[in-house]
Amino acid sequence: MTNCIFCKIVAGEISSTKIFENEHVMAFLDIAPAVKGHTLVIPKKHSENIYDITKKDLQEVISAVQKVSKAAKKGLKADGVNILQSNESIAGQVVFHIHFHVFPRFNGDNKSFKWSRIEYKENEVKEVADKIKNSL
Amino acid sequence: MTNCIFCKIVAGEISSTKIFENEHVMAFLDIAPAVKGHTLVIPKKHSENIYDITKKDLQEVISAVQKVSKAAKKGLKADGVNILQSNESIAGQVVFHIHFHVFPRFNGDNKSFKWSRIEYKENEVKEVADKIKNSL
Repeated sequence: MTNCIFCKIVAGEISSTKIFENEHVMAFLDIAPAVKGHTLVIPKKHSENIYDITKKDLQEVISAVQKVSKAAKKGLKADGVNILQSNESIAGQVVFHIHFHVFPRFNGDNKSFKWSRIEYKENEVKEVADKIKNSL
Repeated sequence: MTNCIFCKIVAGEISSTKIFENEHVMAFLDIAPAVKGHTLVIPKKHSENIYDITKKDLQEVISAVQKVSKAAKKGLKADGVNILQSNESIAGQVVFHIHFHVFPRFNGDNKSFKWSRIEYKENEVKEVADKIKNSL
C-alpha cells in the first residue's frame, strides 16, 4: 500500500534489521524498542489490523511470532516474553499495517503490562457476554 | 492437567461466562477484567505458554482471538482492541495454561499498554539481532 511504512520495509525501500522472513511474513527489530530484542512480526500483504487480516496470513504471522519468541528466549536468555497486538488509535496502534510485538522480558527490566481492574455491575456480566456472543 | 484452573474451566468443574467454544478452544470472560468484555482465549489441551503450544492449537487459538475481537468491536461498539499474551512470571503470567487476553478498548477508558523506550548501544543492534537469528 502506498505510503505504508511497513509495506516499504517489506519492499526493501526502507531498511530494517531483519530477524526472520518467509513468503508470507517478515520479522524485524522495532526502531523504538521497549527492551532488547523487541521485534515486530508482520504479514507481507497489507492488512490494517486484526479485523481484516486473512485467516491464512494470521496463521503465518502467529507461527512466526512463536518462532521469534522461542529464539529470543534462547538467544537472549530472556526470562519471559510478552506478545502485544494493538488495533486502532485508542489501543496504541500508530502504523496501520497489522503487527505483533514480541517483547523479550528480563528480570529487573522495569517494564509492565499490568492493568487496573474494573468491577461489573449486577447483571452486567451476562449482558456484556451476550453482546459479544450475539456478534460472533 | 491436575490443579490447572483453566483445565478445570474446560472440564466444567469451575464455572465461567463462556463466549465461544469449539473442539479445540474456549473463550470466556476474565474474572478480574481490565475493561468490559475482557476475554481470555485458551486451547482446551493444556500447554504452558507460547514455547510449548502445538502449531495446530496456536492456529486455532489465534483464529478464535480474531473472532472474539471482531465480535467485541461490533457487539460492544469498542473503539479498538488490544491482544496480550504473557509468558513466565516476569511477563505477568499467573495461570500457567497459555491464554490470550482480548481487551476491547473504549475512548476514555484510561488503560494503556505503552512502554518507555530504551536505546541500543553502538553495534548492539546487530549483536542482539544475530543472537535471535542464530537461535531460530
